[in-house]
Amino acid sequence: MNGIIHIGLAGARGRMGRAVSTVLDEREGMVVACRFDRETAPDLSRCDVVIDFTTAEASAALAARVAEEGAPALVVGSTGFSPEQRAVIARAAEVAPVVLSGNFSLGVNMLIGLVEQAARRLSSDWDIEILETHHRRKLDAPSGTALMLGEAAAEGRGKALSDLRAAPRHGAEALREPGSIGFASLRAGGVVGEHSVIFASEDEVLTLGHSARDRSLFAKGAVAAAAWVVGRPPGLYDMQDVLGFRQA
Amino acid sequence: MNGIIHIGLAGARGRMGRAVSTVLDEREGMVVACRFDRETAPDLSRCDVVIDFTTAEASAALAARVAEEGAPALVVGSTGFSPEQRAVIARAAEVAPVVLSGNFSLGVNMLIGLVEQAARRLSSDWDIEILETHHRRKLDAPSGTALMLGEAAAEGRGKALSDLRAAPRHGAEALREPGSIGFASLRAGGVVGEHSVIFASEDEVLTLGHSARDRSLFAKGAVAAAAWVVGRPPGLYDMQDVLGFRQA
Amino acid sequence: MNGIIHIGLAGARGRMGRAVSTVLDEREGMVVACRFDRETAPDLSRCDVVIDFTTAEASAALAARVAEEGAPALVVGSTGFSPEQRAVIARAAEVAPVVLSGNFSLGVNMLIGLVEQAARRLSSDWDIEILETHHRRKLDAPSGTALMLGEAAAEGRGKALSDLRAAPRHGAEALREPGSIGFASLRAGGVVGEHSVIFASEDEVLTLGHSARDRSLFAKGAVAAAAWVVGRPPGLYDMQDVLGFRQA
Amino acid sequence: MNGIIHIGLAGARGRMGRAVSTVLDEREGMVVACRFDRETAPDLSRCDVVIDFTTAEASAALAARVAEEGAPALVVGSTGFSPEQRAVIARAAEVAPVVLSGNFSLGVNMLIGLVEQAARRLSSDWDIEILETHHRRKLDAPSGTALMLGEAAAEGRGKALSDLRAAPRHGAEALREPGSIGFASLRAGGVVGEHSVIFASEDEVLTLGHSARDRSLFAKGAVAAAAWVVGRPPGLYDMQDVLGFRQA
Repeated sequence: MNGIIHIGLAGARGRMGRAVSTVLDEREGMVVACRFDRETAPDLSRCDVVIDFTTAEASAALAARVAEEGAPALVVGSTGFSPEQRAVIARAAEVAPVVLSGNFSLGVNMLIGLVEQAARRLSSDWDIEILETHHRRKLDAPSGTALMLGEAAAEGRGKALSDLRAAPRHGAEALREPGSIGFASLRAGGVVGEHSVIFASEDEVLTLGHSARDRSLFAKGAVAAAAWVVGRPPGLYDMQDVLGFRQA
Repeated sequence: MNGIIHIGLAGARGRMGRAVSTVLDEREGMVVACRFDRETAPDLSRCDVVIDFTTAEASAALAARVAEEGAPALVVGSTGFSPEQRAVIARAAEVAPVVLSGNFSLGVNMLIGLVEQAARRLSSDWDIEILETHHRRKLDAPSGTALMLGEAAAEGRGKALSDLRAAPRHGAEALREPGSIGFASLRAGGVVGEHSVIFASEDEVLTLGHSARDRSLFAKGAVAAAAWVVGRPPGLYDMQDVLGFRQA
Repeated sequence: MNGIIHIGLAGARGRMGRAVSTVLDEREGMVVACRFDRETAPDLSRCDVVIDFTTAEASAALAARVAEEGAPALVVGSTGFSPEQRAVIARAAEVAPVVLSGNFSLGVNMLIGLVEQAARRLSSDWDIEILETHHRRKLDAPSGTALMLGEAAAEGRGKALSDLRAAPRHGAEALREPGSIGFASLRAGGVVGEHSVIFASEDEVLTLGHSARDRSLFAKGAVAAAAWVVGRPPGLYDMQDVLGFRQA
Repeated sequence: MNGIIHIGLAGARGRMGRAVSTVLDEREGMVVACRFDRETAPDLSRCDVVIDFTTAEASAALAARVAEEGAPALVVGSTGFSPEQRAVIARAAEVAPVVLSGNFSLGVNMLIGLVEQAARRLSSDWDIEILETHHRRKLDAPSGTALMLGEAAAEGRGKALSDLRAAPRHGAEALREPGSIGFASLRAGGVVGEHSVIFASEDEVLTLGHSARDRSLFAKGAVAAAAWVVGRPPGLYDMQDVLGFRQA
């Protein structure tokens, strides 16, 4: 292997796949060993790690193969997994190192940590709401990152997001339930990705937000995760691990 | 009548009713002739104009009485009317002057005009989305003002809002339909009222927004509308009329 | 003393003095023992604690008396102190407990902690800028709170703000110096107080912000500080102490 | 010439020059006839129009040549001109058609029109402030676009910006002068360009803003201006002309 990391690129022709490819073009020590899209993944033994921005379904299928074959390492950026699909990924993580993240940006992962702390410190009479805006081509709502922020807020309050998550408010009887966490999604033009978490009391509002300017940001983060994950012990990791936030 | 305007105050004990009352305390030439809440309105002949911030149902009942009795003038700030309730108000407006508005602020009514113009000028590959944030006690979503802004945007495009309005985006298949107008509602703490209209193309975003600092703002606008409407011919007016925007 | 806290109110007729007075009206266990404005403070021995929102000059004069007389406790919310005036307050804090804060809101003090952490974690190729907006009657710029946020950011980077603070950018040669912290001030209408701290890399922006809806917010915080400081040992405290953030 | 437009590209190696070049690569009917940077411009007779994003000094030198030679058409996107440099450009516009604009985006030019109208309609007790944020490499402050917005606001009030423009607020005595227009500039990371115009009364705030996602936006607008200007009569035009806003 002479120190070169061999990358497999799933979803190679998608927007994120192409962005990852561009980042890799400028990196030394990493080469793309194979690219694949909707077709079945090729012989994975040629790759040290697969970077996978596809769909929940395609990523679960790939993870199932890793669970069987014990390799390679995975960096998964797909979102919208069902509980069953998550279980498949967890099985892969028993035999190979897997980085699973809804968002590979440094700023977003910083934001997640700050939201968790603010939620821990502010009493429950501060309402929490989460707003996200993405481009017009995004399929799912709310975004995977918005849900990650919601989970951080819920954890700060010692609860599970599933117990606090409010449905979108709509109609004549849409009163806010105390303690709930609301989500709202805007879809407009070419917006790369914006997230805000709002903490509001009767008299003041604290807003923690992030804005991505360029998709290459996420590609760079995924490539950094790939460089980090090769050679790790099996396990399910996220960007908090890659960025070294977990120990701190 | 010796030049004094006699005001009836419906919903007198509600948040807006009390705010109107405070504004009237400091105004010369206007006195509160009667106050009422959930009970049946008293003898309306004592009032030149009734200011009514209650519910769609209560306002429709009041309008039905005006339709029968031919007086007094009405300033209606309730929201969430059904088509039937709107018809009742329209009947009242055949015999008495009625100002109906979802928002009595000068800034919001300016915003409505600007949104209509931007929507008229920007081609339909600019997506339009509307965001509103209100305090945790607000019942309905989206706000009446958000719908007014949506109507202005739709009118700018030569369409009806009912043809363009998108349901809240939620779930795995929430793709934006081209040309639609999306709405999102946040409910948090004591936020008095914030509205943003977003126009986004692939490369740029134009945002037109309004923020209210204090409820007294709306009360002042309603009192200005009451002073304006007394003595007008029967008809259904809105704040664009009161502010003189219609002629311009 | 039978458990009642006797409050002296400096700057009693100013905007903040009146707001504090309104909050005290609704609090049990605290009474206003004396009020004073530009005149010399009366016999301070009647007060357990003086709440002082005046000017840097007046607060320094009051602190000089406390330094001599050894009492009472102080809660100081004035801003814009010179180094000499700060030294006078420090002398008072050797003989009496003094809470000195540029901002008494819980949300702002939370924000200060989050800014310090983000600045500690993000490398210096993230630029830091601070924006504040206040009402048209505010005299000084940037606000005391903006400077507190700048100090927190500088501390997170292991530097002193005085070494990093940039002058307002203006003119044909206004290039940003790497590592500097920029400040910008807007003054508009009745805005109570808004602060944003922006961290920006080449590809992404993290924004941490706070908005105050009502001046009573600061009055409530100052009253909480007064209740906290009575009976403490001499020393110079701030809201991080009052809110218990220092230990955590 | 067989219908092909021959473009000269001044500042060809600068950020905007390269962006224009990329846009032209994908356009039919337009070819780059010559590129030049700091060196003297070559024989201009080969070009139908020069697109020039350089410095005030270099653009004035180019305009002086056009004034003498009577050709070619110019599209000038440089900013920061002195009165003398503006006079040179005006002389060129007597013999050739010149589009001069501080900002070639459709959205910004729409914003300018909306700001002018809002300023015309809102009385002078609404304060106007202008905020702009740009990347860390920008030299001048405030941005040329911020000044264009300020001019639109001043025009709406029937005044000249030079009479209303406030210096950056800074220091202990920085009170807002009634009727003035304030400017604030932030410089951070890779922000392409954000502008907000704030109208604030005692109780409400109207905010009109624009955000550019990608520099190619301005390049596309400049190319559209080049296509529009070739064959026009001599004169000084701006993007309001190119976009057809002037007639409306």
